[in-house]
Amino acid sequence: MRAELLAVGDELLYGDIVNGNAAWLGRQLADVGVTVTTSTVVGDDIDMIATAIRVALDRADVVIMTGGLGPTQDDLTREGIAAAAGVGLRRDDFLESMLRRRFRDMGRGDGGRRVPQMNYRQADLPEGAQPLPNGTGTAPGIRMEIGTGVVYAMPGVPFEMNGMFTASVLPDILRRAGQPAVVVHRVLRTAGMWESAVAEALADEVDRLARIGNPRIAFLASGGQTRVRITARARDRAEAEMLIAPVETAARTALGAGVYGGADDSLEGVVLGLLVQRSATLAVAESITGGLLAGRLTDVPGASAAFRGGIVSYATEVKASALGVDEGLLAAEGAVSSRTAAAMAAGVRSRLGATYGLATTGVAGPQPQEDKPVGTLHIGLAGPDGTVTRSVRLPGDRPRIRTYAVVSALDLVRRMLAGLPNSEMTTTGDGAP
Amino acid sequence: MRAELLAVGDELLYGDIVNGNAAWLGRQLADVGVTVTTSTVVGDDIDMIATAIRVALDRADVVIMTGGLGPTQDDLTREGIAAAAGVGLRRDDFLESMLRRRFRDMGRGDGGRRVPQMNYRQADLPEGAQPLPNGTGTAPGIRMEIGTGVVYAMPGVPFEMNGMFTASVLPDILRRAGQPAVVVHRVLRTAGMWESAVAEALADEVDRLARIGNPRIAFLASGGQTRVRITARARDRAEAEMLIAPVETAARTALGAGVYGGADDSLEGVVLGLLVQRSATLAVAESITGGLLAGRLTDVPGASAAFRGGIVSYATEVKASALGVDEGLLAAEGAVSSRTAAAMAAGVRSRLGATYGLATTGVAGPQPQEDKPVGTLHIGLAGPDGTVTRSVRLPGDRPRIRTYAVVSALDLVRRMLAGLPNSEMTTTGDGAP
Repeated sequence: MRAELLAVGDELLYGDIVNGNAAWLGRQLADVGVTVTTSTVVGDDIDMIATAIRVALDRADVVIMTGGLGPTQDDLTREGIAAAAGVGLRRDDFLESMLRRRFRDMGRGDGGRRVPQMNYRQADLPEGAQPLPNGTGTAPGIRMEIGTGVVYAMPGVPFEMNGMFTASVLPDILRRAGQPAVVVHRVLRTAGMWESAVAEALADEVDRLARIGNPRIAFLASGGQTRVRITARARDRAEAEMLIAPVETAARTALGAGVYGGADDSLEGVVLGLLVQRSATLAVAESITGGLLAGRLTDVPGASAAFRGGIVSYATEVKASALGVDEGLLAAEGAVSSRTAAAMAAGVRSRLGATYGLATTGVAGPQPQEDKPVGTLHIGLAGPDGTVTRSVRLPGDRPRIRTYAVVSALDLVRRMLAGLPNSEMTTTGDGAP
Repeated sequence: MRAELLAVGDELLYGDIVNGNAAWLGRQLADVGVTVTTSTVVGDDIDMIATAIRVALDRADVVIMTGGLGPTQDDLTREGIAAAAGVGLRRDDFLESMLRRRFRDMGRGDGGRRVPQMNYRQADLPEGAQPLPNGTGTAPGIRMEIGTGVVYAMPGVPFEMNGMFTASVLPDILRRAGQPAVVVHRVLRTAGMWESAVAEALADEVDRLARIGNPRIAFLASGGQTRVRITARARDRAEAEMLIAPVETAARTALGAGVYGGADDSLEGVVLGLLVQRSATLAVAESITGGLLAGRLTDVPGASAAFRGGIVSYATEVKASALGVDEGLLAAEGAVSSRTAAAMAAGVRSRLGATYGLATTGVAGPQPQEDKPVGTLHIGLAGPDGTVTRSVRLPGDRPRIRTYAVVSALDLVRRMLAGLPNSEMTTTGDGAP
C-alpha cells in the first residue's frame, strides 16, 4: 500500500503556516505500516490541484488531501478533485440541510437564511464522491474513487482533520489494504529517564515486535520527557486492546517508576493530583528555573487547590532575605549547592505555609557560575519528614537546561509522593553522575 | 520567475520532523516576489529524487532542494541530481581538501585520516555542478544547470540552509530573474499594540508600497507581539538601505511608542537593558502569570544584573502573608482588582528591595473568578515616585491570556522607563476598554 499526501493552500507555499498536517499524517501512517512515498503542497488553483491528484494517483494507491474545503472562493479542492476525475460538482441535499441546521445551532440566522449563500459551497461534492462526516467543523470531507485509486480530502484545520482521519479515512485505507481496520494507540509518558534509557529498557520488546509487525512501539522525546506510543491494528477495538495489553504490561514493567501517565496526562497535572489526594500543598523556591517551575504548575487550571505559590530568589541576597537561607552557608558553599537547595526548600515551605517546599538552584549558562559548570542542577524537597536533595548534570543550552530542571524537580516530587524509587538520572549529594 | 521546493528525507515523510524549511523558504521567496508553485517531499531514494527534479523542472525555472547532502548512505541528493541530469559524480579535489582541513580543525584525526572514508562523499559533485559554500557545516551545497533551469541543493539543517540560501542561492535566483540581487530585511518589533492596530497604522504605507512593489512590508503576530518586516531588493546593500530608510522612518512614526526593538531584540531584554542603564532593579509579584513573567526575564543570560527575583502569590492568603497586601483590601475588592495589583507591586518592591515592583493579577480561565470575566488583567508598577496601574481585557484561552499578560506587564515597564505614552490597549482603573 503506497500513499501520497497532498496539501492545498497558498498560505503553506508562502510559509505563513508550516505543514504540520503532513507530519501528523506521516506518523499515523507509519504506525500502521503504510508507506508515504511523496508529500506535495500546491496553491489554490484548480488546474494545479487536478494535475497533482492525477500525478499522485499514477504512483500511489491512495491520495490523502488536506485543505481547500472551506466556503470561500479560494477553497478549490472540490473543483480540483472533480477536474481530476473529469466529472462535475453536484449540491448534496443532505449535506445542505446539515449545514443549515449547524448554522442555526451556531446562532447564525433563522435556519441559516442569513448565512451567506457561499457557505453552502461546502455541500458540493464531485459526482460519484461520498462525504466524510466532520465531527467538529462545518466542512465535510470527500472520498472519491478515481480509476483504481482513492482520493480522500479533509479540512486543513488540524483538529478537524485529525478526527476525520481517525474516524473515517484510516479505517477505509486499512480495509482497502486488506488489513485489520481498527487502530488503537496507547501512550505512556515518562520522566526522570534519558531517552536512551527508555530505548534501552524497551529494546527487547521492540525487537520482539519488529519480528511480528503488530503492535509497534515508537518513541518521541521532547522537553526532557519521553513518550512511548504503542500502536495496534485489529478487526475491532477489543482485539486491539488485547494485542496492546501484554505490550503495555511489558513496557510498564521495563520502565518502572519512569512512567507517570498516559496520553492526556501532564507531569505537573499528575503532581498536583497527588498533592490533592493527600490534602497537601506545595510551594516552590526557584533560582535556575527563575519562575518556570511555578509557571508550569499554574498552567494547570485549578492549580490553586494544591499550589500555594513561589519565591524566585534570583539575586543571591534574596535567598537570604526572602527564604531565610543562612548567609554563612551561602558564603561557604555558594548559591549553587545541594545544601543551599535544601535550605531554600525548607525556607519556602515555612514562609508560604505549604506541606512541601521544592527548590531549584544551578547553572543555566552560558557562563559557569561559582566555578560550577553549566548544567549543574541541585533540587531540594522539604516536607513534614525532613528534607531530601538530588543533583544532576544536565546537557544542552540555557533553555534546554532550564526545561530539564523543571521536569527533574517535578519528577522528584512525584516519586516522593507516590513512594517510588529515585530517578537514576540524579544522585544524592553534590556529585553529578 | 517560478520556483519549486523539493525536500528529501524519509524522516519528513514519517513525520519525525516537520518541514519547517519549506515554510522558511516560502517566506523568503514571497518577500522578493518569487512565486513558489509547488512544494514536494520525497524519501531517500535516487529514482524518486531524480523524477521529482525532472517533473519540477518541467514546470518551474528553479528548483530549490533541502536535505540529503550528509555523509551517510541514505544521503542521496547528489546522486539524484546527477541522475536527473544524466551525468555521473566526480570527487572535487578542492572540496576534499576543505573537508580534510575542517575535520582536522574539529579534532577528528590527523589531517582527517582517521575520519571514515564515507565522510568524503560530501566532496562529490554531479559533473558540471558548482559547489555552494557552507559557512557553518561540512556539507557544501550544489548548483546545477539542467536544460534551461537550475537546481540548488542545500543541507537540511535549518541553520546551515538559511545561511547558504541568503549568501548564495537567493542572489543567484534574483540575478537570473534580472532583478537586483541584494535583499535586505529590516525588522521592527512592537508590543502593546493589537495586530489590527499595527496593520491599520501602516495601511497607507503598505498601499503605497504595493503600487511600487519594492520594498515590501509583512506582519507576523505571535505571543502578543507583532513583528513588522520590511524587505528591499537592490543592486547592493547601500542601495537597499537607502530604499528601506524612508519606509522604516514612516513605519516608526506610524507605530510610535509601539516599537521596542529590531530583529535580534526581545522585550524582556530591552526592559532589562533599560533597567541596567538606570542602575535600577526589578522584582515581580505574580498571580495570573504564576511565574511566567519571572521565567521570561530569567530567559535572558545576565538577567541578575537588574532582576532581583519574584513572589508568585497564587493562593490569596499568600498575597497578604508574603507581599503584605492588606487583608481588608483583599476582602473588599478581591484578589483580582486594580488596587490589589498596586499593593502587590508595592509589597514586592519593598520585600525584595528593588527599585521597581511589577505585579499581575487577573483571570486566566477557563472559569471566571470573583465574578470577574476570563481575560481580566490588572497590572501594578511601583517605583520611587509612586504606583501606577493598568487594566485590560485580553482575548483567547488560558495559555494565550497568560502570555499576553506577561507581554503587557513588561511593556508597561518599558514605556514607563523610556518615558513613552501608555499603550492604547490598556486603561487606568478597573475598567477594560
